[in-house]
Amino acid sequence: MPPVDLIVTDATVLTHTEPAAPGYPDDPAARRATAVLLEHHDIGVLDGVIAWVRPTGTTPEAERAGARALDGRGRLAMPGLINCHTHSAMTMFRGSAEDVPVHSWFNDHIWPMEVNMTPRDVALGARLAIGEMLLAGVTTFADHYFSMDEIAKEVSAAGARAVLAPTYFSSEGPAGLDRSAAFAAEWHGAADGRITAMLGPHATYTVDDADLERTARIATELGVRVHIHAAEGMFQTDSSLESRGVTPMQVLHDTGVLEAGAIIAHGAGITPDDVRWLAPVADRIGVAACDKVYLKHAQQSTTPVRLLHDAGVPVGIGTDGPASGNTLSVLESLRLLALVEKQKEADATWLTSAHALDLATRQSALTAGLGDRVGALLPGRRADVVLVALDRPHLQPLHDVAAALVLSVQEADVRTVLVDGRVVVDEGRLTTIDVQEAIDGLTARVPQLRDRSHGRRIQDYAP
Amino acid sequence: MPPVDLIVTDATVLTHTEPAAPGYPDDPAARRATAVLLEHHDIGVLDGVIAWVRPTGTTPEAERAGARALDGRGRLAMPGLINCHTHSAMTMFRGSAEDVPVHSWFNDHIWPMEVNMTPRDVALGARLAIGEMLLAGVTTFADHYFSMDEIAKEVSAAGARAVLAPTYFSSEGPAGLDRSAAFAAEWHGAADGRITAMLGPHATYTVDDADLERTARIATELGVRVHIHAAEGMFQTDSSLESRGVTPMQVLHDTGVLEAGAIIAHGAGITPDDVRWLAPVADRIGVAACDKVYLKHAQQSTTPVRLLHDAGVPVGIGTDGPASGNTLSVLESLRLLALVEKQKEADATWLTSAHALDLATRQSALTAGLGDRVGALLPGRRADVVLVALDRPHLQPLHDVAAALVLSVQEADVRTVLVDGRVVVDEGRLTTIDVQEAIDGLTARVPQLRDRSHGRRIQDYAP
Repeated sequence: MPPVDLIVTDATVLTHTEPAAPGYPDDPAARRATAVLLEHHDIGVLDGVIAWVRPTGTTPEAERAGARALDGRGRLAMPGLINCHTHSAMTMFRGSAEDVPVHSWFNDHIWPMEVNMTPRDVALGARLAIGEMLLAGVTTFADHYFSMDEIAKEVSAAGARAVLAPTYFSSEGPAGLDRSAAFAAEWHGAADGRITAMLGPHATYTVDDADLERTARIATELGVRVHIHAAEGMFQTDSSLESRGVTPMQVLHDTGVLEAGAIIAHGAGITPDDVRWLAPVADRIGVAACDKVYLKHAQQSTTPVRLLHDAGVPVGIGTDGPASGNTLSVLESLRLLALVEKQKEADATWLTSAHALDLATRQSALTAGLGDRVGALLPGRRADVVLVALDRPHLQPLHDVAAALVLSVQEADVRTVLVDGRVVVDEGRLTTIDVQEAIDGLTARVPQLRDRSHGRRIQDYAP
Repeated sequence: MPPVDLIVTDATVLTHTEPAAPGYPDDPAARRATAVLLEHHDIGVLDGVIAWVRPTGTTPEAERAGARALDGRGRLAMPGLINCHTHSAMTMFRGSAEDVPVHSWFNDHIWPMEVNMTPRDVALGARLAIGEMLLAGVTTFADHYFSMDEIAKEVSAAGARAVLAPTYFSSEGPAGLDRSAAFAAEWHGAADGRITAMLGPHATYTVDDADLERTARIATELGVRVHIHAAEGMFQTDSSLESRGVTPMQVLHDTGVLEAGAIIAHGAGITPDDVRWLAPVADRIGVAACDKVYLKHAQQSTTPVRLLHDAGVPVGIGTDGPASGNTLSVLESLRLLALVEKQKEADATWLTSAHALDLATRQSALTAGLGDRVGALLPGRRADVVLVALDRPHLQPLHDVAAALVLSVQEADVRTVLVDGRVVVDEGRLTTIDVQEAIDGLTARVPQLRDRSHGRRIQDYAP
């Protein structure tokens, strides 16, 4: 083989995960999810792509000559984490709307404050978010927000990977969808392929069926998917059934959105009956689960992971925006989901740590529409790699690596992060962006951002 | 005033919390919990005690001369965190019994493995635990385990503070209680007052009423309290009612344990009717809530925080042992509890971040029986102080300090930790103990510790 340009040496490598079979654990014959861990292995990277994963010491000198070496001893190499649903720039509102129910969060706090927001605020908010995510091992994020050009520029500069969907409402008339489509035409595949575009209709209750149909048509023409809030809780499904006799999933089906391919944000109101709409398109959709936010907003329903699992529909991990979730840590979201699932299903054997890792890697990549590019450390995949220090006191002794990653790890254990083989976090330090500038800029803007004296809001929340 | 020997300069100081009034939030007149935050303040420490908290720049030179200064700029100074219920040495089993229900956790995994454990294993496990806790800002822990002399020596050497209760079962005959009492007689007030002893009957289902009565009598004679597992879930309360017609709380009342004073570990099976036993002794008891473990073991009941709050009974934060909870982080436990409470009560306005901080500081100190010594940065309290970096990307911009501490902070944001005014963590490094030695020692012991071929267990779990 040709020489590589970068090698991670002598790490414990989480190459990929093997999913649990449907029916598990009701069917005792079904196998458990497995995280495939290789001790004392090297990862060779050439031109941003994983060339090989081999036992340490087995690569000929000729194939190693001149390559940059990253010491993996005492470290776990895992696929870059994927945040399947967020509003990154809302770092600017982190902690500004606390201890309120969801209708008040929108109508009394966030939607009035978003009136004040400038494109520069979005740029700074996104830069801070990208820094926070990279430091926590999140190499890809699926974003849904305003001023998306600003966010795309920040992604490009930071060397991160992102799936970007500009948000629009039907209340804007055709302008919103046109803007989202123009963004996709301009940015899809940009930043050396690190930017993937999607269309971003806000939700099934703020974008009407005609606009959803047009969205699906344009998405198909452009070769992109759709990212949309739908069935965020069972209360929305109930409301949709009452007012129009169909579930939000059926709306997505009937308007062609599912056929086009979609990230379904939340889906906590997906019903067993909805599987009929979702299962046939399981190759092009995924549901982003953000359990921290459901708990914080006292929502009684959470994403039905087991139902979706048994239907073969991918479930990805999201954080939601930091104004509701307070962080952008996929590790935190994953841990919460694993714990919540066990209690919700009244089954401590459900959602094992290996299964949780499958959600955070393979299934999150599928959800984000990047199943063939990221989510596994296998030859041919992009070299998005996170090195986690395993020698920390809170992980030791190391009986079970998967459990350590899901239930014990801390974000600061993420030491070094690669995107497309480029070091974007080096021993806990960001190498590509200045987040302090973003923090200072946003801190100075806090009084104006919080001003609600204008009495306006960008929308009314009445799902 | 006389000169102090240490000053934390120019910090944001969380001096103390003001609890929410009972009835909140059903009673709109009831005030919310408040975290009292003072910006640009200094903390003076003399002989391990907080001498004063003053605005920066207001202390005369004569009172500062010769004092060691710790730079508090960009940092929050908060009371050392208190872990109200753990089994610290079970770090040795972290990750060894995953994805199993609680009866299997005990009978198939932990109690067979504990047969293999030596006093040296306990010493190493405790040392690792103390290091992990200090690094996460936990200055005090309430421990319930075996070979407690070994743990006491580790606490003493590390400079930590602890409330130590040697575990015993009635199956041991009188030897168990005698051993626990002898420990209390020897160690209560040791390590310059940093060790507080309690008696440690395992649980209401493993220690019979006669032994509980004797426990209460001896505790009162020795001037110590009792630390006991009770009503760990509603299933135990149901079982107790069915087999003997009384709840575990009534057992604690009838045997005199409540009158003697107690940490009630878990109490997730406490009923509204139990308040009659608890409210009259609210000045000497507290309930340690460990929500992560309830979720992980798929338990359907969690500690009834609102019921206890309205009854005036302190609720402290615990992690439980790291073989079930996987970490010893009070910050993590606190976050989970705050989120779980909102969802459980279907009320996003319940358990505000300020209220959560009251649980983690003032109420945890009361629960641990140290309400007059720690839990607040006020003159006269022991100088157990944690400095948290507030400038981290995931905390910024800082709209709400309390929300940041409860919902965004990471353990690694804890930079410097004092116990009795002594620096035990200095910029993220432990200054008093070598945890690597403990990690290496335990790692070497893992194969023997996991051996279950002997077919024995230390007890049978059948609550």
